[in-house]
Amino acid sequence: MAKRTQKSNGKPRLSKQDRHTLRQLEQLAHTVVQAARRHRAPYLDIPARSLSNVRFNKTRRILEMGRNTNRRQLFNLNQAKSYMQTLLVASGCKRLIDEGKTTSIRGLYYMLKHTIKGTKEETFDEQAECDPVIEDLEVLVRCLREELHLYAQKKGDMVGPLVLVDNGDQIDCSRMGSGGYGIPSIVEPERIQFKKCTADFVLHVEKDTVWQRFNEDKFWKKHNCILTHGGGQPPRGVRRLLYRLHHELELPIYCLLDNDPWGYYIYSVIKQGSINLAFESQRMAVPEARYLGLRSKDFQECELSESVKIGLTDTDRKRARQIAQYPWFAHKKKWQKEIQQLLDNDFKLEVEALISKDISYVTEVYVPERIAAGDFLD
Amino acid sequence: MAKRTQKSNGKPRLSKQDRHTLRQLEQLAHTVVQAARRHRAPYLDIPARSLSNVRFNKTRRILEMGRNTNRRQLFNLNQAKSYMQTLLVASGCKRLIDEGKTTSIRGLYYMLKHTIKGTKEETFDEQAECDPVIEDLEVLVRCLREELHLYAQKKGDMVGPLVLVDNGDQIDCSRMGSGGYGIPSIVEPERIQFKKCTADFVLHVEKDTVWQRFNEDKFWKKHNCILTHGGGQPPRGVRRLLYRLHHELELPIYCLLDNDPWGYYIYSVIKQGSINLAFESQRMAVPEARYLGLRSKDFQECELSESVKIGLTDTDRKRARQIAQYPWFAHKKKWQKEIQQLLDNDFKLEVEALISKDISYVTEVYVPERIAAGDFLD
Repeated sequence: MAKRTQKSNGKPRLSKQDRHTLRQLEQLAHTVVQAARRHRAPYLDIPARSLSNVRFNKTRRILEMGRNTNRRQLFNLNQAKSYMQTLLVASGCKRLIDEGKTTSIRGLYYMLKHTIKGTKEETFDEQAECDPVIEDLEVLVRCLREELHLYAQKKGDMVGPLVLVDNGDQIDCSRMGSGGYGIPSIVEPERIQFKKCTADFVLHVEKDTVWQRFNEDKFWKKHNCILTHGGGQPPRGVRRLLYRLHHELELPIYCLLDNDPWGYYIYSVIKQGSINLAFESQRMAVPEARYLGLRSKDFQECELSESVKIGLTDTDRKRARQIAQYPWFAHKKKWQKEIQQLLDNDFKLEVEALISKDISYVTEVYVPERIAAGDFLD
Repeated sequence: MAKRTQKSNGKPRLSKQDRHTLRQLEQLAHTVVQAARRHRAPYLDIPARSLSNVRFNKTRRILEMGRNTNRRQLFNLNQAKSYMQTLLVASGCKRLIDEGKTTSIRGLYYMLKHTIKGTKEETFDEQAECDPVIEDLEVLVRCLREELHLYAQKKGDMVGPLVLVDNGDQIDCSRMGSGGYGIPSIVEPERIQFKKCTADFVLHVEKDTVWQRFNEDKFWKKHNCILTHGGGQPPRGVRRLLYRLHHELELPIYCLLDNDPWGYYIYSVIKQGSINLAFESQRMAVPEARYLGLRSKDFQECELSESVKIGLTDTDRKRARQIAQYPWFAHKKKWQKEIQQLLDNDFKLEVEALISKDISYVTEVYVPERIAAGDFLD
């Protein structure tokens, strides 16, 4: 990755992290060899990724996986295929690391998909069959998929007083014009190093269009912050970057999202991660992230006009009630009030609704006032 | 925009383009005043954006609008509202230019949406009502929406041997690490100036995940090109940038897209623009753009395995036949053969399918060979 150089034998020099990941993968392969040598049936004990095996650690405020595992056996007709798939995915990731390359989960699927010799059986019929196996492997070898050299979709941009080194190139995020620095999908320390940062906080906004407003108004310059967006639900790279900005540079993270269940959900994922990927939340979640808005009280507080209301749908109401039950919201009075008021309002609000006040109301009034007053949810 | 400075009266200094756009908008407002002074009923003659008023100019190879117009009258019960909306959108754009700001079409909608005094009538009930009025205004005053200070979604990234100035910041696209330069949605010459370019061509790929493969393999360095993607269907900013790279820097544009009707369609939009926005094609379309692949012949030619085939759906077949009838494909034997072979194959192929050969087959073999052989469609 970052400073990889070619060794004399043409193979890429492995980073410390890569060597660690490889050891984990080799250990996995070793279990098969050992079982064979001992004339035992090979199996894998995969930590259960089911809801029942996930618990919210209130002290550490992160999701943790329990000790339940599912055994996957080679000599079991129902499990043989997924056993094979698990080892196949592991071998694919090993190949990626060996070659010093990364690929998408779609790419890995194509790499590994083939008709099994002498049969008409495919290794994977479709990608939906491959993706959960990747997640299995992550928990099995305790590595993020980025460490397995898999990248996700690339979305999101960043500007602000931060100088970083990306793959050897020094990038000054305060000199990125209107376009900004496209946040990569793999932002592990080996690839991205923070060089210099003078920002006081991070403002993360939901949409690129809102980000453009903040960038155009040079909000990040006036308020000395880093400005990011994730093109809606932020992809893993953006979340991991927020995590690193928070934990390594100790920057508070403020989130500006729509006042609707989708906005709450985006905040929830930044804050705690997603329940079915609990394992990752330790290195992706920012429990201290702050929800700046929009809030259910804003229609009145900002004196918005009737015109900007968007009625809740049945799905919205259902989602809102579900989110209110999330363990990190369930015991927070402020959050219960926030979500209840959304339901009572029976309408939602987009960040863009603030434009009805003034084009730059959001950058010049709303956000600065809320930050100054410490008026946010967490 | 780019080098705008504040004048002593606090108003932003207008660029030449802004002054031109303002004149156009003021002229429009003037028609109302004139009509009122002459005691005539005010109206607007809006160039018809219907298919029947669009024709493909085979010599210039661009879409052109005919002379048909639709009259929109204030004193006509059926047209009064859309007359009002047209002037409202025009006044909103004037305000944006006056304030030196830009916004999204969603933002403009919120800016202009309100209950009309003394009635229960909204200026716009939903954004779907506002968007076509923006298009009307574009053809009416002969300005791109970017010149009306409206921006679209921001997607797409760029790397390569190109130095540009974006809003005063100098950006070296060959020093952008793995993230790349996020292509802004407004790339007009007043905001983005090309400073230095030593590239020989542009390779535009469909997806960010494929772009990451090419960037990781430093394809653009080895082959001295600019590498762009548009996150699927490229947004206006990416298309306009490709146009400028082609027309101002005389770079050939090669497109690497999936072998399916959607890939053909993306190529078609880059090449000719979309039929219902024919007006824009003069300043967005790159008729000389080259379709490098994937091709229907590639399954055989690249000796791909059965596993990577994805069966065509009914929608695919229908879309393929429609696209074959587009005027810029209809008389091209090669394109007819390409689309017919897709239908005969009865399967489609994604660019990622080439990974089944080798992770870097697409960057090391496929694209270099095709470019060297001049093997593309246009």
